[in-house]
Amino acid sequence: MNFLQQRILSEGIVKPGNVLKVDSFLNHQMDIALLDQIGAEFHRRYADKPITKVLTIESSGIAIACSVAREFGVPVVVAKKSKSVNIDGDTYVAEVESFTSKKKHLVVVSKKFLTAQDRVLIVDDFMANGYAMQGLISLVESAEATVEGLGIVIEKAYQEGGWRMRNLGYRLESLAIIESMDPKTGEITFQTQE
Amino acid sequence: MNFLQQRILSEGIVKPGNVLKVDSFLNHQMDIALLDQIGAEFHRRYADKPITKVLTIESSGIAIACSVAREFGVPVVVAKKSKSVNIDGDTYVAEVESFTSKKKHLVVVSKKFLTAQDRVLIVDDFMANGYAMQGLISLVESAEATVEGLGIVIEKAYQEGGWRMRNLGYRLESLAIIESMDPKTGEITFQTQE
Repeated sequence: MNFLQQRILSEGIVKPGNVLKVDSFLNHQMDIALLDQIGAEFHRRYADKPITKVLTIESSGIAIACSVAREFGVPVVVAKKSKSVNIDGDTYVAEVESFTSKKKHLVVVSKKFLTAQDRVLIVDDFMANGYAMQGLISLVESAEATVEGLGIVIEKAYQEGGWRMRNLGYRLESLAIIESMDPKTGEITFQTQE
Repeated sequence: MNFLQQRILSEGIVKPGNVLKVDSFLNHQMDIALLDQIGAEFHRRYADKPITKVLTIESSGIAIACSVAREFGVPVVVAKKSKSVNIDGDTYVAEVESFTSKKKHLVVVSKKFLTAQDRVLIVDDFMANGYAMQGLISLVESAEATVEGLGIVIEKAYQEGGWRMRNLGYRLESLAIIESMDPKTGEITFQTQE
């Protein structure tokens, strides 16, 4: 069991509706030493890739992206949530549906910060159905940049996001893959990784 | 002129309506080395204070808060924007008006992550009228924690936020204080700091 799985077992709280609360160390209160371990682990896994940018989505991916980007010595680009499309055409836009609220919103990134030369590692805290990730991939592809890989801190194996991303041919590295959670007992089972 | 003022002069863009765009290094694309210089500088200025938490507000304060918290070896707590008050009473709540959109929203923080023992450094990217900062101070005071100081990356001297905070007796350290900006010429003048 890795450092993150241990931390999830000791502090994660299982809530009804397949919700895992990790707000004592990852989302609301943030343990910087843990974030830096996460950054080092993604760097180790993607050390063979010539990453030029780390892309994430506001707001819970930002802290993770900063720790990852520090390891690679590259900038972070944060895709912004937006309600309206900027009409002057200087942004790439994708539509995303939220798993928790079911609402649709746009994610945008300035054309200045993603170019065809960029080789992008996309990171986020959670992957459930993968809609946010699909929006981010779409932004990178709009820029004709290269998606070198996806880095997810906590993947939910019983939702289809991870399966869909791998099926589409993307390399996906998840630091903890949750096989099942029981809100009654609080038990969390991880998928075994090599 | 310090490292941040130099960077603002070389890459900041003045827009009509007293807007300074620093999205190539601070807000949208983030230069991690610069964030770490910012973290080191706030640590130098508050080295005399026994900081236990760095508090910020989502989303543009998060990256800065992580670099500051790393220097102090303490966690970040991110106040969340919210439309509705959580009825189970486990959060502190404050109301904030946005300078850009003029809309009011709530900021909330879980009672678990701010306690009476905490000595808090509050950081954010910009200070204009100071409404966001006032909301964050109110959260700390609801928890009966101590506001040890405020750290702002870019303060606008011609708006009242900085003056109000200092007038209320808070220690405020701003790394760049903008005296004036001219959207026609793009000229930016900084207030001289000791």
